[in-house]
Amino acid sequence: MEELLSGIESPADVKRLTIPQLIQLAEEIRERLILSVSKTGGHIGPNLGVVELTLAMHYVFDTPRDSFIFDVSHQAYVHKMLTGRNRQLGTIRQPGGLNGFMLRTESEHDSYGAGHAGTSLSAALGMAVARDMSGGKEHIVALAGDAAFTNGILFEAMNNIAVQTKRLIIVLNDNDWAIDKNVGAVAEYFHKIVTNPTVAAMHDRAAGLLERFGGKAVRHMARKAEEAAKGLIGPGMLFEEFGLSYYGPVDGHNLPLLIETFKFLKLQNKPVVLHTITQKGRGFQPAEEKQKKFHGLGPYNPETGETKPAVQKTYSEIFGETLVKLADANDKVVAITAAMPSGTGLDLFRPKHPTRYFDVGIAEEHGVIFAAGMATKGYKPFCAIYSTFLQRAFDQVVHDVCLQNLPVVFCMDRGGLSGDDGPTHHGLFDISYLRGIPNIVHMVPKDEDELADMMYTAMLHDGPSAIRYPRGAGPGVKVKKQPVALEIGVAEVVQDGNDVAILGLGAMLPEAMRLAAMLEHEGFSVAVINPRFAKPIDRQCVANYAKNCGLLVTMEDHALAGGFGSAVLETINEMQIAAPVVRVGWPDQFIEHGKVEALREKYGLTAEAALERARPYLATMESRRMALR
Amino acid sequence: MEELLSGIESPADVKRLTIPQLIQLAEEIRERLILSVSKTGGHIGPNLGVVELTLAMHYVFDTPRDSFIFDVSHQAYVHKMLTGRNRQLGTIRQPGGLNGFMLRTESEHDSYGAGHAGTSLSAALGMAVARDMSGGKEHIVALAGDAAFTNGILFEAMNNIAVQTKRLIIVLNDNDWAIDKNVGAVAEYFHKIVTNPTVAAMHDRAAGLLERFGGKAVRHMARKAEEAAKGLIGPGMLFEEFGLSYYGPVDGHNLPLLIETFKFLKLQNKPVVLHTITQKGRGFQPAEEKQKKFHGLGPYNPETGETKPAVQKTYSEIFGETLVKLADANDKVVAITAAMPSGTGLDLFRPKHPTRYFDVGIAEEHGVIFAAGMATKGYKPFCAIYSTFLQRAFDQVVHDVCLQNLPVVFCMDRGGLSGDDGPTHHGLFDISYLRGIPNIVHMVPKDEDELADMMYTAMLHDGPSAIRYPRGAGPGVKVKKQPVALEIGVAEVVQDGNDVAILGLGAMLPEAMRLAAMLEHEGFSVAVINPRFAKPIDRQCVANYAKNCGLLVTMEDHALAGGFGSAVLETINEMQIAAPVVRVGWPDQFIEHGKVEALREKYGLTAEAALERARPYLATMESRRMALR
Repeated sequence: MEELLSGIESPADVKRLTIPQLIQLAEEIRERLILSVSKTGGHIGPNLGVVELTLAMHYVFDTPRDSFIFDVSHQAYVHKMLTGRNRQLGTIRQPGGLNGFMLRTESEHDSYGAGHAGTSLSAALGMAVARDMSGGKEHIVALAGDAAFTNGILFEAMNNIAVQTKRLIIVLNDNDWAIDKNVGAVAEYFHKIVTNPTVAAMHDRAAGLLERFGGKAVRHMARKAEEAAKGLIGPGMLFEEFGLSYYGPVDGHNLPLLIETFKFLKLQNKPVVLHTITQKGRGFQPAEEKQKKFHGLGPYNPETGETKPAVQKTYSEIFGETLVKLADANDKVVAITAAMPSGTGLDLFRPKHPTRYFDVGIAEEHGVIFAAGMATKGYKPFCAIYSTFLQRAFDQVVHDVCLQNLPVVFCMDRGGLSGDDGPTHHGLFDISYLRGIPNIVHMVPKDEDELADMMYTAMLHDGPSAIRYPRGAGPGVKVKKQPVALEIGVAEVVQDGNDVAILGLGAMLPEAMRLAAMLEHEGFSVAVINPRFAKPIDRQCVANYAKNCGLLVTMEDHALAGGFGSAVLETINEMQIAAPVVRVGWPDQFIEHGKVEALREKYGLTAEAALERARPYLATMESRRMALR
Repeated sequence: MEELLSGIESPADVKRLTIPQLIQLAEEIRERLILSVSKTGGHIGPNLGVVELTLAMHYVFDTPRDSFIFDVSHQAYVHKMLTGRNRQLGTIRQPGGLNGFMLRTESEHDSYGAGHAGTSLSAALGMAVARDMSGGKEHIVALAGDAAFTNGILFEAMNNIAVQTKRLIIVLNDNDWAIDKNVGAVAEYFHKIVTNPTVAAMHDRAAGLLERFGGKAVRHMARKAEEAAKGLIGPGMLFEEFGLSYYGPVDGHNLPLLIETFKFLKLQNKPVVLHTITQKGRGFQPAEEKQKKFHGLGPYNPETGETKPAVQKTYSEIFGETLVKLADANDKVVAITAAMPSGTGLDLFRPKHPTRYFDVGIAEEHGVIFAAGMATKGYKPFCAIYSTFLQRAFDQVVHDVCLQNLPVVFCMDRGGLSGDDGPTHHGLFDISYLRGIPNIVHMVPKDEDELADMMYTAMLHDGPSAIRYPRGAGPGVKVKKQPVALEIGVAEVVQDGNDVAILGLGAMLPEAMRLAAMLEHEGFSVAVINPRFAKPIDRQCVANYAKNCGLLVTMEDHALAGGFGSAVLETINEMQIAAPVVRVGWPDQFIEHGKVEALREKYGLTAEAALERARPYLATMESRRMALR
């Protein structure tokens, strides 16, 4: 059999294939995915699940004229392979390579970027309405997983679709899973549809008919299935009540059935939902068996699925273990996640305290208000939400938590540059969006043990607090048995000195130490501060060093605009101290994906770069010192 | 008939009344509401609509042991009257008086504060779960208007309720209206239920039965109605699919029926939804006829409902008129509102360009992504969302708009202190939460004409932008016929000077001018700058004055933490200029409701207070000048 994949330069090449060839191509795509992602890491499970769906979509529709909007878009690898980027698949998530999500700047076939769930229908509706207004004929196809239906934005969109457009195709990719098993009423509802015997029988008959009679029979069946669905309590009704015509469920791995169905849906003059059943990790046994592990991961063995054992505990694990410990001793401690138990480390908490563990779905806003509600009744909720995802609950942090001064703790994993995932997942804004809010305490640990102390401090604090810590492993400091409470707003002086004071926030403390060593080597006396608090700033400490040193250097794994260094500037301004400050952090632009170390170097978040920036002040200090001699 | 209202000191007094007395009390409450709010202004329509509902709730339940959570909570006046605050009703929204929303610090009966829609079910669920965990027996009752069901958070909560608690009472207060007429599929769905002939007949029969046989029959009917509802395509199904038991619809003004129904629902061991039909403005003819006007308004004539004609156009009106003008000349201009056409001024746009006007419901997140979707197809969406409400779409501003660098324009009305509505409605954080985001241009006009220029500038700009302007009327400057494009990042020098430079952002420019006059009177040469851009800062202008003047003063109607003054500090820090800066703005605390002028005085946002703060620097300047003589 001739290999087909390497001949696919664009969707036009897909359209030329016969059905048997398409089926062969699907297998080639799977093989290549499994092998290629085994080296780069990435979202293998979701992509193996949508091979046939993506092929059928590109066979029937015509991008970039038609637009595909993928929810989250971590399942766009196959789409990338079919739109001229197959050869670059090996560069995915690698520095300078393909992004792991759709990116408008990467290809004209990527009509809309994403990275956070639940946005696809809103974007698709915007495009559909724009098309209608312009008199366009193109198709807009949104593909969303069942997990996205736990997110409120998607319902806001559903409320608007039927009144605003007559042409929009929604593909519900139902695989029962987000990253973890889905939760809530909607998940149960989808399950009820799929397991309904009438619907299942219909679906089997459709498949059979297709084999015998081809497309026309399927269209007939789709109509009948639709009618049947309407007669049942359950199937499709949720969509029908929103004015969307429901079709399905259909087997999302049956290529000819999908193709015929898309051809049929293309002709409808009403917004439609096609419910497809797919299997996450399809065709790769380790991924079929361990769907959670193989949602997204690092490199693995393409034969066995084995991954290298982690050498060191991640911050997420330390978080999870510490929360277990706190909850053991305090029955008011509860944990909340927005569909990220494994990513946040709460999968360590769940088995230990199952009744105090809440997975609310991809629903950050609800999760934060839910936490606030629990706090009014004396509970101490720890909301484990990545820095970038907490952006989604900003108003709820302001209103429900901070304005009411309720003791909710936000544990912001992935605070700082997240690396491979890129700009949609970097957590570079949490200081700037949080420190403007009254009442919140914002902490940044220097290491694992301090994270535990900060969690303990947050537990004791009778008001809102947030803790940010980076992705992956920390410096490897052992966590002591019993955490201690830190004094709020008090920094730690790591070493004293009187020429230069370096404030190295959290993950930047090691760089601060390196910079100190470099300066000391040049004969300067250098203080190094572990600020601990981005809010409130330790005013006394800052004042002390601002007055006595010739230069302050702030280092943060955060955007400079409005960040920690900015807070230090405000502090010395309020205290009417005139001291030169060099601020090191991320510049005012979106940072691409890549390796953290390399990106830090590129953008000047290193001791070397800081030294260069400090030079003019050091020279002044030198000459002043010379003059004093 | 003896007057009853003045004897109501707490809900216990309500429980002592007979049904005829309760009906009388309802009328007394209405009269007092109409008269009292006619003097203070406030949300008269919504409160007239929930008089019987609130009475029945307090008759059957027992706050503060039981908790009431009102969505938005602008309809809590009756609740306040029944919980010991009747005598203070005349102080509502007045300086030092009652807040216009529920406030945990105001009364133990206010179990949860709100101000933005859609949060009630999440908070109620948090409380219910906390109660279940603690083994409590109290009831949690959430009251939400039908408009709240256009908001996604509410659906996120619905997805979680049935799996997380067996006891939660949700009251759907269905009056067909948010502030404006509701939109979307859910509104149509509710309408279908209410107008369904079977349901309507059932409802009439229930009312009749109650009169004849009392409570028991009603309970029987409620069950029958429920069964009937389940048999229909439509009524209740939406809730049933989320695992909630649906009851209704019932007449929300029939006190005995409501009381019997609540007594019944109290006994249920499952989460329930009671669908009540109410009339906004009930009992006050002007409000019944003009529901939009009487949602919330200033003082009016309690007989006729007449309000004083506005003497001057508001910023909202200028915005609406200008957008009509821009859209007349450019067919790519579209307008988006999240259920606030009148508040934002878009009610002026809707009749002129009905096909380019989109009310998406109380769905800020969807609205922003929808705008981004339209922008990908060449449209220029103007999202008219209050500063405080845009907080709800923060992540979408970051990801969908700024990261993709799409030309969406955010028009943030109520940017700055909003006055009477209080902390839930002040717009004091938009500079701090937006200026950390790459790519966005943030503009602040000094007057009405400049607002028009900035909208025109935003229309021409090929990237994201935001414009903030205050509530109410501006200085009254006439808008010129044809707006001009401003150069992005360039400030306007209002007057030159070389001792002190005052940067008066937007609404603070008049205070800056007053301060300048005071300083000039003392012999200083003063420059006054209209910065125009909070991002990007005019670096050249700032550098120029920072180098040549002895003092910079920044004045902003925004929180100091991370605000405009902070951006100026960053700018001079980046340019390595050492210049003293006095920053005037709101301190790091939530600001209460009150009159803008009085609060500015209290918190030091005046020329006088700025002068005091500048004194030390002025003294230094003086002595330096003396020394030079």
